[in-house]
Amino acid sequence: MSSVFGNNLKLSIFGESHSAAIGMVLSGFPAGVRIDMEKLSHFLSRRAPGKGAHTTARCEADAPKFLSGVVDNITTGSPICAIIENTNTQSKDYDNLRDVPRPGHADFTAFVKYGKAHDIRGGGHFSGRLTAPLCIAGGICLQYLEEAGIKIGAHVKEIAGVSDASFDPLTPELDKVGYDLPIPVLDTEAGERMMAEILKAKSELDSVGGIVECATTGVPAGLGEPMFDGVENRVSQIVFGIPAVKGIEFGAGFGVSSLRGSENNDAFCIRGGEAKTETNNHGGILGGITSSLPIIFRAAIKPTPSIARKQMSISLSEREEKELEIHGRHDPCIVPRAVPCMEAALAVALCDMMI
Amino acid sequence: MSSVFGNNLKLSIFGESHSAAIGMVLSGFPAGVRIDMEKLSHFLSRRAPGKGAHTTARCEADAPKFLSGVVDNITTGSPICAIIENTNTQSKDYDNLRDVPRPGHADFTAFVKYGKAHDIRGGGHFSGRLTAPLCIAGGICLQYLEEAGIKIGAHVKEIAGVSDASFDPLTPELDKVGYDLPIPVLDTEAGERMMAEILKAKSELDSVGGIVECATTGVPAGLGEPMFDGVENRVSQIVFGIPAVKGIEFGAGFGVSSLRGSENNDAFCIRGGEAKTETNNHGGILGGITSSLPIIFRAAIKPTPSIARKQMSISLSEREEKELEIHGRHDPCIVPRAVPCMEAALAVALCDMMI
Amino acid sequence: MSSVFGNNLKLSIFGESHSAAIGMVLSGFPAGVRIDMEKLSHFLSRRAPGKGAHTTARCEADAPKFLSGVVDNITTGSPICAIIENTNTQSKDYDNLRDVPRPGHADFTAFVKYGKAHDIRGGGHFSGRLTAPLCIAGGICLQYLEEAGIKIGAHVKEIAGVSDASFDPLTPELDKVGYDLPIPVLDTEAGERMMAEILKAKSELDSVGGIVECATTGVPAGLGEPMFDGVENRVSQIVFGIPAVKGIEFGAGFGVSSLRGSENNDAFCIRGGEAKTETNNHGGILGGITSSLPIIFRAAIKPTPSIARKQMSISLSEREEKELEIHGRHDPCIVPRAVPCMEAALAVALCDMMI
Amino acid sequence: MSSVFGNNLKLSIFGESHSAAIGMVLSGFPAGVRIDMEKLSHFLSRRAPGKGAHTTARCEADAPKFLSGVVDNITTGSPICAIIENTNTQSKDYDNLRDVPRPGHADFTAFVKYGKAHDIRGGGHFSGRLTAPLCIAGGICLQYLEEAGIKIGAHVKEIAGVSDASFDPLTPELDKVGYDLPIPVLDTEAGERMMAEILKAKSELDSVGGIVECATTGVPAGLGEPMFDGVENRVSQIVFGIPAVKGIEFGAGFGVSSLRGSENNDAFCIRGGEAKTETNNHGGILGGITSSLPIIFRAAIKPTPSIARKQMSISLSEREEKELEIHGRHDPCIVPRAVPCMEAALAVALCDMMI
Repeated sequence: MSSVFGNNLKLSIFGESHSAAIGMVLSGFPAGVRIDMEKLSHFLSRRAPGKGAHTTARCEADAPKFLSGVVDNITTGSPICAIIENTNTQSKDYDNLRDVPRPGHADFTAFVKYGKAHDIRGGGHFSGRLTAPLCIAGGICLQYLEEAGIKIGAHVKEIAGVSDASFDPLTPELDKVGYDLPIPVLDTEAGERMMAEILKAKSELDSVGGIVECATTGVPAGLGEPMFDGVENRVSQIVFGIPAVKGIEFGAGFGVSSLRGSENNDAFCIRGGEAKTETNNHGGILGGITSSLPIIFRAAIKPTPSIARKQMSISLSEREEKELEIHGRHDPCIVPRAVPCMEAALAVALCDMMI
Repeated sequence: MSSVFGNNLKLSIFGESHSAAIGMVLSGFPAGVRIDMEKLSHFLSRRAPGKGAHTTARCEADAPKFLSGVVDNITTGSPICAIIENTNTQSKDYDNLRDVPRPGHADFTAFVKYGKAHDIRGGGHFSGRLTAPLCIAGGICLQYLEEAGIKIGAHVKEIAGVSDASFDPLTPELDKVGYDLPIPVLDTEAGERMMAEILKAKSELDSVGGIVECATTGVPAGLGEPMFDGVENRVSQIVFGIPAVKGIEFGAGFGVSSLRGSENNDAFCIRGGEAKTETNNHGGILGGITSSLPIIFRAAIKPTPSIARKQMSISLSEREEKELEIHGRHDPCIVPRAVPCMEAALAVALCDMMI
Repeated sequence: MSSVFGNNLKLSIFGESHSAAIGMVLSGFPAGVRIDMEKLSHFLSRRAPGKGAHTTARCEADAPKFLSGVVDNITTGSPICAIIENTNTQSKDYDNLRDVPRPGHADFTAFVKYGKAHDIRGGGHFSGRLTAPLCIAGGICLQYLEEAGIKIGAHVKEIAGVSDASFDPLTPELDKVGYDLPIPVLDTEAGERMMAEILKAKSELDSVGGIVECATTGVPAGLGEPMFDGVENRVSQIVFGIPAVKGIEFGAGFGVSSLRGSENNDAFCIRGGEAKTETNNHGGILGGITSSLPIIFRAAIKPTPSIARKQMSISLSEREEKELEIHGRHDPCIVPRAVPCMEAALAVALCDMMI
Repeated sequence: MSSVFGNNLKLSIFGESHSAAIGMVLSGFPAGVRIDMEKLSHFLSRRAPGKGAHTTARCEADAPKFLSGVVDNITTGSPICAIIENTNTQSKDYDNLRDVPRPGHADFTAFVKYGKAHDIRGGGHFSGRLTAPLCIAGGICLQYLEEAGIKIGAHVKEIAGVSDASFDPLTPELDKVGYDLPIPVLDTEAGERMMAEILKAKSELDSVGGIVECATTGVPAGLGEPMFDGVENRVSQIVFGIPAVKGIEFGAGFGVSSLRGSENNDAFCIRGGEAKTETNNHGGILGGITSSLPIIFRAAIKPTPSIARKQMSISLSEREEKELEIHGRHDPCIVPRAVPCMEAALAVALCDMMI
């Protein structure tokens, strides 16, 4: 009971930061779907680190190797397994962490759960690196959805208190996001101010958090099941599988607290002969079921817990407090890299409901 | 695939607002647990409407009738079924709604999904009334958890922009909440101002939304599974099953966007010989697994969509816009009644992980 | 994790032999399906006891009461809950069984699992009576399947070594079964000999077992998933949920052990323009997926464990051997009543794969 | 929804006969378990072909490569992924089969389900080769169970009508099976007669089927859940995942049809201070729950469908009947290789219920 998501589509993710490989098995995906490998590769590169001064110095090739379920780039209907081999790993420095858990990481809770057998190197199975297999699955699902007329996009909505513009809730400008910018935003200038905050934090041996906003176009009405299998339930279940996510909100989200019913209710209307709503505070979901309006959600990403600054922790063996200094290569801000992960997570959740 | 939650504990909820009964089946609950029926009844009364001018005039007895799984108030180990009979229903006025969906409700999406067969009376299966069976399950789980030293409490954190005090993240004052107040808060004076806002909205034929905060004490470290079965994943899956929830955040939640890593990281420390953290921005969960710190989450509740004010909608049959006036008895604010629902949802999710 | 079956369709069964009611929740069933209540009632009566000297003297009305999911006999798309109230129960004589488990029953294993809290009256949740809710779910599914051109039938293939004719594997004569006979068979004369065996066993304070054969017509090719979610996997999972089943075989079944590949392989052919096979040793399933040939399976039903004869058992409290004499009303043969249960189980499993 | 088994333990199997690799992901397996790789390797070799004239001439190394979840042969608690690379594949001869399905194989049903995209080479995902990953998972689980005092063994009970001795149902002689014989049996002489039948069939360009019997020692009472998650339900779900299985029976199995209740009921008794039964017709399972008696089941394995003899089939494209001649290397009897598969399947199912 772990690391497996989905009902009709089953996504099983495996691997540790420093294991021989990380990867995913996607069972139940339709047969006969052509995967554009170049497109997939480009999508994965958006998650990969190493594109600028603000990211980790590590270089992850992240080229997926398909072991099964695909012949000549066409899915066979059988479970798709793809792996990414871990080649560039430096495992030497983890003995210290085995005893002194890093604040904000899963080191301590993994120790409680798995004991000393936990593979702590690079965070093991809890590493942000494990979002790469999620992005393989998501990248495949995104292509499937696109064939069905459904598009998904995301952007950095906020970093360190600096805000980007928001998607138009009725017609989200998915094509206006600068996906290949160091920070994918709608408003390039906002992105530059975010970058300044990131570099400032970095220079202060610190890190910053932020918010990602994700939206769709073309999702038909009627997806999702009532109560515990609604779109919000399913999407949040997978999105909290992305490390560092601490909150999720749909449509008007936490803003509903200050709205009157008369403001928050989205009046129904006819647009182009179709039943639509005049506003989209409901984020495309009513009663857990899609309304055909864009699905819109935002997720909060905490600041990278690995910071170069000295921090207080404890020695697990000696049960006493102890100072900790983390070495190694760490992003001062993982929010930009979380953008494709959100798209991937939503794509997998939607595919699961559609097939 | 719907209305069923859980892995080891399976909660299946059934019923419509105006069906013969609503109820729940809880499979996998341990044998030999004594249910204090009076305590359960008191818990359910916290969710029930009708305690003041600010709530609906409907009177729901909500006395659960146990059909199976319990003998002499002791669980047998077999599936527990409990129902609440629907007696006080007025079904006459729903013909209009069958054609003109209420803004902010599931009427439209249910029509898309189920067609005319959907039982629209009172919202059918999408009615807030369906939180009563959730509270039966939750009330039973709360008693089980309490025996294990785990307490859960919640309060209204915000209504219409008026804020209550927050729980202390390290030692949440669960016993300080005025659970039997019309609005369960920590700060009675804040509750009075919230009430004023509710009554003002009501007099203006409108409604208001808010935020509920929920916390635990006594949860041991090590609950939850990595990635998609972590505590945040599971809790959010069940919490979004409560109608009107549009967002959820754990610990520092969306606030992490403005925090530096050095601020957000919770330094480990030794307290009373136990490994703890000095702060609790992580909301008791690291890597999806409990840390032994209190679990803390907040959920956003949208304003009641049923308002007496005229609203714009459409005729589904004529596919043209049409004004709608909703009659009947509706809460101008459902946030207070969502408080025990959050406790129930968390209790079910935790029990599922513990047994 | 118990008493719940299905992926897209979730069947949750609850109740104990002497609880207030037994029943079922069927989630995920399509909206807009008209249930012919008379037909359902007739189907349930086939499972009910009390039709002859060979059955138990108990009279179970078994009239289902629908609590939700159905309005004017049409499904709403919401979970369907139906219950049967337990009225004719005699709970006095069970104190003895609480300490001295009945051979062949679940008394002992339930005691190990649930302790003294287990509701032993009438066998509790393990009672054959719990097949009544299965038959409600199955009866609904049978009607749904019939609308889709799929028929399911079953007959007693063997009792106490006396054999009925077999279904023709290519065109099973579902309409030739004497469903309303005391023993539903193809060959009435065989049924009479079976009855003689049953009555002989009864007069000797004993019971007999048998085999039920179940078949379909009209099942399209392509149902079922590979490996663990194939038709055989899913059908066997639900069929072993019927108490007293100790074996299941599909198509040629255990007979394959004596067949050569050249005999067992079903040659493909064209019949009426359709791809078919000339024989049907594969029981309509190849690689877990339906071939469009009739699904055929047989299940072995053990003799009723409750016999009037004295048996050896143990006292759980004193941990010593002790003679046991079971009082009460018990079928000397439950095989005839298992016939509709098999049809119900198959119907639920097929519906789960189709919707 | 396919190729994934388990509740607390999730086994996901992937791969096609001629894909780059086949493999498995086992999620939820406990941390800190040492895997004896040599023992695992020996277990896998029992499934591997190529040990005699009666088996396929193919040589599969089947050496598993662990990609994750294991460090220094000790499980980390994270999902375990192991693969076997496919190196010795001859893919040239499959174009014919793409149009003319092999009788007794999944070629036709896979075509219906997946269309031309199905990877038909070597049977694709439906190949018996996919039992290798099942045996990896099972081999790991067997070691885990052995640490807990539980042993599992199996032998060929019957081939082509020739019978081996049966396990003693009370004390199955697991150690007496000649596991490394060409045909693992209790009675060597019976094995020789089986071999004669196999070679005879082979010389006649044909194949034979059989029955495998599997048993345990040391399984505690109380495993399994009622109704649909009982031991029989779970074991049969996984066992039918082994290609060619057409039937399964527990304890007295289909034999119960000729037994009286007084014969079939297993009297309880005290043995060594423990509650036991004097006979074991129940196969260690009552009400779906283990009784502490040995679990005993038998599975029927159909004759290898790939035979060298000419057979009748159809052309899918031309929809007309067509003769088929299968080339390549095929076992005239796969029953001996199914023996470790049964042990593996039971081991995975038991582990899933225990952890």
